Amino acid sequence: MSAHLGDWRGRYRGAAICVVRPATTAEVSAVVRACAQAGVAMLPQGGNTSLCGAATPGPEGDTVLISLSRLRRLRAIDPENNTMTVEAGCVLQTLQEAAAQAGRLFPLSLAAEGSCQIGGNLSTNAGGVQVLRYGNTRDLTLGLEVVLPSGEIWDGLRALRKDNTGYDLKHLFIGAEGTLGIITAAVLKLFPLPRARATAWLAIASPALAVRLLGDLQARFGALLTACELVSDVALGLVCKHFPTAQAGFSASPWYLLVELSGGDDDSSRRQAFEAFLAEALESGTISDAVVAQSGEQAQRLWALREHIGEAQKIEGLSIKHDVSVPISRIPEFVERAGRELAQAFPDIRIVAFGHLGDGNLHYNQSQAAVGENAVFIAAQAAVNRIVYELVHELGGSISAEHGIGQLKREELLRYKSAVEMEMMRAIKRTLDPQGLMNPGKVL
Amino acid sequence: MSAHLGDWRGRYRGAAICVVRPATTAEVSAVVRACAQAGVAMLPQGGNTSLCGAATPGPEGDTVLISLSRLRRLRAIDPENNTMTVEAGCVLQTLQEAAAQAGRLFPLSLAAEGSCQIGGNLSTNAGGVQVLRYGNTRDLTLGLEVVLPSGEIWDGLRALRKDNTGYDLKHLFIGAEGTLGIITAAVLKLFPLPRARATAWLAIASPALAVRLLGDLQARFGALLTACELVSDVALGLVCKHFPTAQAGFSASPWYLLVELSGGDDDSSRRQAFEAFLAEALESGTISDAVVAQSGEQAQRLWALREHIGEAQKIEGLSIKHDVSVPISRIPEFVERAGRELAQAFPDIRIVAFGHLGDGNLHYNQSQAAVGENAVFIAAQAAVNRIVYELVHELGGSISAEHGIGQLKREELLRYKSAVEMEMMRAIKRTLDPQGLMNPGKVL
Repeated sequence: MSAHLGDWRGRYRGAAICVVRPATTAEVSAVVRACAQAGVAMLPQGGNTSLCGAATPGPEGDTVLISLSRLRRLRAIDPENNTMTVEAGCVLQTLQEAAAQAGRLFPLSLAAEGSCQIGGNLSTNAGGVQVLRYGNTRDLTLGLEVVLPSGEIWDGLRALRKDNTGYDLKHLFIGAEGTLGIITAAVLKLFPLPRARATAWLAIASPALAVRLLGDLQARFGALLTACELVSDVALGLVCKHFPTAQAGFSASPWYLLVELSGGDDDSSRRQAFEAFLAEALESGTISDAVVAQSGEQAQRLWALREHIGEAQKIEGLSIKHDVSVPISRIPEFVERAGRELAQAFPDIRIVAFGHLGDGNLHYNQSQAAVGENAVFIAAQAAVNRIVYELVHELGGSISAEHGIGQLKREELLRYKSAVEMEMMRAIKRTLDPQGLMNPGKVL
Repeated sequence: MSAHLGDWRGRYRGAAICVVRPATTAEVSAVVRACAQAGVAMLPQGGNTSLCGAATPGPEGDTVLISLSRLRRLRAIDPENNTMTVEAGCVLQTLQEAAAQAGRLFPLSLAAEGSCQIGGNLSTNAGGVQVLRYGNTRDLTLGLEVVLPSGEIWDGLRALRKDNTGYDLKHLFIGAEGTLGIITAAVLKLFPLPRARATAWLAIASPALAVRLLGDLQARFGALLTACELVSDVALGLVCKHFPTAQAGFSASPWYLLVELSGGDDDSSRRQAFEAFLAEALESGTISDAVVAQSGEQAQRLWALREHIGEAQKIEGLSIKHDVSVPISRIPEFVERAGRELAQAFPDIRIVAFGHLGDGNLHYNQSQAAVGENAVFIAAQAAVNRIVYELVHELGGSISAEHGIGQLKREELLRYKSAVEMEMMRAIKRTLDPQGLMNPGKVL
């Protein structure tokens, strides 16, 4: 059972009565019904890639761990309706591939896609690198099948783009991290496969200029803009240090943007328009350098610079991590004030900032450059969190943009959610899971 | 009070203790608190344009009608974040105009936009003519402010594109038709203002060909495709009959499609690509005629043919109306089988079919051509409904795609929703509105 009992980041380790591996929705239902009747707690688990300990049991050892990994059928794919019906245990990447084989795009894309399962993506409302254009997992979902805490099966597998027949219950289960029931299948939206792509790495002086450029890109290219990722020089420096083959070769700049357009099939005129746009931005001084990928391979190399940031940080050593969002218009203020306040409190701090500018979502991580002093710094996590989260809260932001709450941020949730909202959440939990058996100790 | 007590279609008329017209969220809260303490039922009302009697009181006269029309402040607009914060009583069209003045698009667009209010759009999750590209009202909403049945105010006015901090409660209130609380304000998404538009009216032999053409359009133009409306020859004939200035001038065809591309600013190359696409479709026989608007004025005239269908039906006389959806891939089967089964049961039936092909949503209405016999036919509504709804259900569709349930489809809901789903809905209603005071007799 060992692989199921610890989390991916190595922060949590728990115990369980057993690991059950049902292969069908009916089997999940039978397991849940037996647990409900016996009053035994349950923990659903997918690819076990949560960054918040959402899929790791507590230490009590009184929980039945239900792995969904054998529910991995692609039940149906309907290209004319642009939908596919999939089971919870399907690995995200296999779904991307199945969609592509049918000539369609399933746009959910994130670092763990080779091992995370769609049931976990749904339960955490996963985000990723194409939210700007296609939305979060929630926005990609038309229907759900859920085993309720009683063991009853709710068949909400509708493949409809419009359905106004009462309360939209699927949204309760999406993002609930398994605390209200177990998602066993879903109907997901598909999109036309983009036939053309233009990718560029831009050097830009400040987040304020980056926000302005984002607005210009949206005004000019609309829905063709599918990614706008912000990367600080410190983040890029770590990648270049630990992945020597990942050479940047850009002129030095405090900030960078990775921009991608995709869609349609009119490659040459799109590329021309994009290059003309960048030439204007260079001339007006909005950006100071631009590299436009001349091939798919070069585009991949640019993306690798962005995607290796997480791994580079891990090699560098421990750090304090935040996954926050604020309104896009407040990103510059957030970066400026958080940087200043943290530097005042921790003079030798090193801030690694990067993320999804188009979604107002920053991964905002801290360590100290001197390895010897980092352990002391990490111990000050509570104080660091307070500075970051107070500012996020003041700016109308979220302390968990795309990773969820799990067990990591349960206490912070209590601090920043209103009493009215916490009580509504608790009331819904009591209503759907009156015995409190579904993934206890998470979220609430 | 009279204007508040009847519905727009003239089907329902009720009574109320009084009409209260609060001007602020605090005043709504005070009214609701007083009603909750006195155990008096409440009915929130916006522009009173419901097509299902959702905003009309019952005959008992024991309800306080709360009009939201004085909550009409545009609280904030943030073009950099592409959001605006608006109060429930704002008329939809004024919000479209406010967005446009800020250089942004608020894409919700529907027939009643000159009088419907955004609080009602939210409470019914309104659809309209741009759902294909921009989604339903639900998809356009980032945050809500709600006065709960207790009178407490839930401030969920977040302007974030990513926020995974617990259950996403806003989705419970959107589409709940005021049965769980009163929406007083919302944060809505804005989009870049499309700078170019190409509109065409196409003659096409069958819904099956129309579905295929839709797929081709999506593959070729992706997110630029913002409307794909299906119109039957009978529907167009009624428009031409009752609006003599609305001349079609197309070659006769059993079906038509109104197609619109919009976005970006590269007008000439877009139009070229669109015209080349249509030329190919003509050559391959997918379509038999195409008129591409050569000016904004001509585009408006094409849209008028589509938008006058509702009014033309009204002038023609009473009809039985359905607002249904099925997976887009099942639209041809639905049209074929429903037409055949209805004609078998009612030999002289006249079917007016039109709607949002790109959303799988048809407005599917029936009358008899001979005015004298129509009253008898209308009296057979239950039998007509049964044929239509049984087929919709068999094809995995919805009996209310975009109009909601209100009082009109409450009994049908019981027939077609599973017991598990009805009980979940009732449990949530009991949890959030334990006294059952919010818009009683609607939805549940």
